[in-house]
Amino acid sequence: MASTLVAPARSKRLEDPLEYLPCSRTAAYKKSEIIYTHGEATKNLYLILAGKVKITRQAEDGTQSLVDIYHTDEFFGEAALLRPATRSEEAQTVEQTRLMMWTSEEVEDAVSKRPPLAVALLQVFSQRLSDFTSRIQSLSADGTDARLARSLVHFAGRFGTVEDDGGVRMMPFTHELLAQYVGTSREIITLYMNQFRRQGYVQYSRKSMLLYRDALREWLQRN
Amino acid sequence: MASTLVAPARSKRLEDPLEYLPCSRTAAYKKSEIIYTHGEATKNLYLILAGKVKITRQAEDGTQSLVDIYHTDEFFGEAALLRPATRSEEAQTVEQTRLMMWTSEEVEDAVSKRPPLAVALLQVFSQRLSDFTSRIQSLSADGTDARLARSLVHFAGRFGTVEDDGGVRMMPFTHELLAQYVGTSREIITLYMNQFRRQGYVQYSRKSMLLYRDALREWLQRN
Repeated sequence: MASTLVAPARSKRLEDPLEYLPCSRTAAYKKSEIIYTHGEATKNLYLILAGKVKITRQAEDGTQSLVDIYHTDEFFGEAALLRPATRSEEAQTVEQTRLMMWTSEEVEDAVSKRPPLAVALLQVFSQRLSDFTSRIQSLSADGTDARLARSLVHFAGRFGTVEDDGGVRMMPFTHELLAQYVGTSREIITLYMNQFRRQGYVQYSRKSMLLYRDALREWLQRN
Repeated sequence: MASTLVAPARSKRLEDPLEYLPCSRTAAYKKSEIIYTHGEATKNLYLILAGKVKITRQAEDGTQSLVDIYHTDEFFGEAALLRPATRSEEAQTVEQTRLMMWTSEEVEDAVSKRPPLAVALLQVFSQRLSDFTSRIQSLSADGTDARLARSLVHFAGRFGTVEDDGGVRMMPFTHELLAQYVGTSREIITLYMNQFRRQGYVQYSRKSMLLYRDALREWLQRN
């Protein structure tokens, strides 16, 4: 058995990497522009100053999987810290986007000069590992309808704004994009989205999506 | 468009966190002992000095998912760096195991004193994010037989030793454990393992498993 006792959760706040990162080069991208693609050697860690970026993987047969969509104040491209740093993913803007970027050498230099930055980045990566683990669990254990429900709850938490009636308003994800995230076909997504709409969990149009998140969470607990 | 060009992959080696981490408390565990479990508040980052540890998640209905199995010189429990640091996973030894552990405060202190440790840990976490992303891709896009084949190739790369005939010898994973990793039932694993055995990709007994990894990789590319 371990010789140390488990300590209670700390109330100390997480470190914010943005407080410690030096300013660096920026770049502006239009909607749907590719930032980097599969197989490229690259060396930049990116921070989103404004906009949204989707990260996808592609199987040999061309099947696209959506890793996630990142937005303002979030990082992507952390594989730049590895050697060799080859991209096994593609980064593409979802809307007009402005990025700041650091080479891995610049990150290493900044980390050496400002140790709290190291702690902050380790926390960002730990949180993402935890999120990916939840996703692996859902993909392993849930049926397609529950995976879709969890994905909608996930996106609502990241991109939504709560309205007066408790619904969460967010951008209108295409069924194609949801299919790439959930790991199924567009047809199956359409089937379950229609079901969720009939049951009152979601309303959507071409302009936006309104999700009744608490009700959908209850549905997840019952199923 | 970005204003900087993409640089070629570097040949510089990855940093090794073990070169920079100060010695700390150790603990010995018997086979199948639980190190921490779901819902516990905790504050240790662990390093495996010898042995193997499996990390699992449990759904509300009791379904277990295997996150991964870690072995000598690998870290687990990185969620200790988050605040609040609550475990959403369980860590249990697979065999007799010896661990070294640091509280998150000790990690932060060590990172401040030895910046290369920060870079090394960031690289360890980046590599794991990349591995988890591959897993998410496989769970999203592959059929069950391909997920099982990729899982066997993954475990062979981590735990196997190559024999004269090119086969990779490794520990005999139970069908239950493979099912928790692949995200299916034990019965389905048994079905596909029998199929892989008949096709000559794998031999197994109670004592060990022999995987013809290159042949299975070719099968994966064809399917």
